[in-house]
Amino acid sequence: MVAYYLGPPLSYTHSAAQTLAREEKLIASPTITHVFQMISSDDDIGIIPLENSTFGSVLETIDALPLFPDLRISSETTLSINHCIATARPAKTSEITIIISHPQALGQCSNWINMNLIKDIERVESSSTAKAAMTVAKSHSDPDIIAAICSKACADFYGLFILQDSIQNSSCNMTRFVKLQKQNSINSSIHNGTNKTLISFTVDHNQPGALSKALLALNQIQLTRIDSRPSHRNPWEYIFYIEMIGHHEDDLLSKALLQVKNATDSYTFHGSFSNSG
Amino acid sequence: MVAYYLGPPLSYTHSAAQTLAREEKLIASPTITHVFQMISSDDDIGIIPLENSTFGSVLETIDALPLFPDLRISSETTLSINHCIATARPAKTSEITIIISHPQALGQCSNWINMNLIKDIERVESSSTAKAAMTVAKSHSDPDIIAAICSKACADFYGLFILQDSIQNSSCNMTRFVKLQKQNSINSSIHNGTNKTLISFTVDHNQPGALSKALLALNQIQLTRIDSRPSHRNPWEYIFYIEMIGHHEDDLLSKALLQVKNATDSYTFHGSFSNSG
Repeated sequence: MVAYYLGPPLSYTHSAAQTLAREEKLIASPTITHVFQMISSDDDIGIIPLENSTFGSVLETIDALPLFPDLRISSETTLSINHCIATARPAKTSEITIIISHPQALGQCSNWINMNLIKDIERVESSSTAKAAMTVAKSHSDPDIIAAICSKACADFYGLFILQDSIQNSSCNMTRFVKLQKQNSINSSIHNGTNKTLISFTVDHNQPGALSKALLALNQIQLTRIDSRPSHRNPWEYIFYIEMIGHHEDDLLSKALLQVKNATDSYTFHGSFSNSG
Repeated sequence: MVAYYLGPPLSYTHSAAQTLAREEKLIASPTITHVFQMISSDDDIGIIPLENSTFGSVLETIDALPLFPDLRISSETTLSINHCIATARPAKTSEITIIISHPQALGQCSNWINMNLIKDIERVESSSTAKAAMTVAKSHSDPDIIAAICSKACADFYGLFILQDSIQNSSCNMTRFVKLQKQNSINSSIHNGTNKTLISFTVDHNQPGALSKALLALNQIQLTRIDSRPSHRNPWEYIFYIEMIGHHEDDLLSKALLQVKNATDSYTFHGSFSNSG
């Protein structure tokens, strides 16, 4: 079996893949969307970030989930995320003119950036924090002082100088990573421990109260999260994401999900899964 | 009276300010957070983007709202957003090596970027699309071909070359802008037409079913949007945002909001408002 993860090697997702797919051959993908696209057979696995405790949903992931309804989340793992700021040659933080990282990491470190770097610093988005470190490693002869926000392991691997460690807004900064598989490849009878279930749906915009009706069906269920994104069908129509405690084969939840399905348009079940530690 | 808006001049928010604060003196602010901070008296107004129909909530705005509980949204306006790609000297799109814009505009044009620009293009974030155009205007002697995503009016003003117009993912791309005021400066008796109300709250994470209970209180109300963001109190605790049809002084809504307030922690009322056209 092959596990595709958001690379390059040494990305935070790479660490998560070592937990979620420890027996598989790991292959780095350039983007989250690419991971989704690569899962073409029952032998393929994808490992991607879902949500960060400081900066919220990973938009590329939640936007892709409803587009790949044959894929399911089969397990998750949570990692503490500790970012450092690193440059290709020794420098003071006040000398940095360009900062590169994944939009999530830029958001997770926004307080430190605003307090320590020059006003109007140029913020460059990269597809992952490890990619940012790679880019900065190549910048040692650049007249600008370019800094990456990445893990310490990553900065060390690329021979960068760490100007400061633990620069994230919250000392308790965590990211949830999930394992994706083809629907058929999941052995649904295995569900130990606490399970979570993730669904998404749209509602008929012309029917007032349609959203309330869908939510009412989940009234006996312990909801942990509600999120929404534009549906891309019509302006101001949304895809709603609901995460809850329970497995879709549990009696109470299975009945509630059926009611939600009947009350909504384009309902998608994204999986029931537990934490792999 | 003075109206602070997300600048610089010619930003999309500047156009919205000309509708929402047409009789006021308009002053450009460098960031959305700065607009919030500048509203210090009953004579001050702020104009900021709230949500885009293609790329969703403006994160800086919804993260700031609960931090300024004495400010209220008093009206909104919706603008069609039409982005072009523009450079400081004539170029082919395939020659562009760096692209600069607001993260929202980069998201709204993601399909065009992925299909027309070089793989691994450097994406630079700016505080507004007008700021991106300003930056690109200064890049004419740069060896790189740097492009801005901005409005056609903005590209024209800064003398940029428009390589392609209407590059957003959806032909129907709209942004909602809102007017913020001090709570005391709003004449609450004026509420013509259809009103919307926006609230946010957190729930006790240790109390299973707390979120369902809050939602149940709104069961008779027409909900238009639910969103969530990390609460920054504890990991995996959220601030939920609910937007609904109705004015907070309407009988049914006023009772429902009281129930929500009693069922939740740190409830914030962000205003009842109608569309200013």
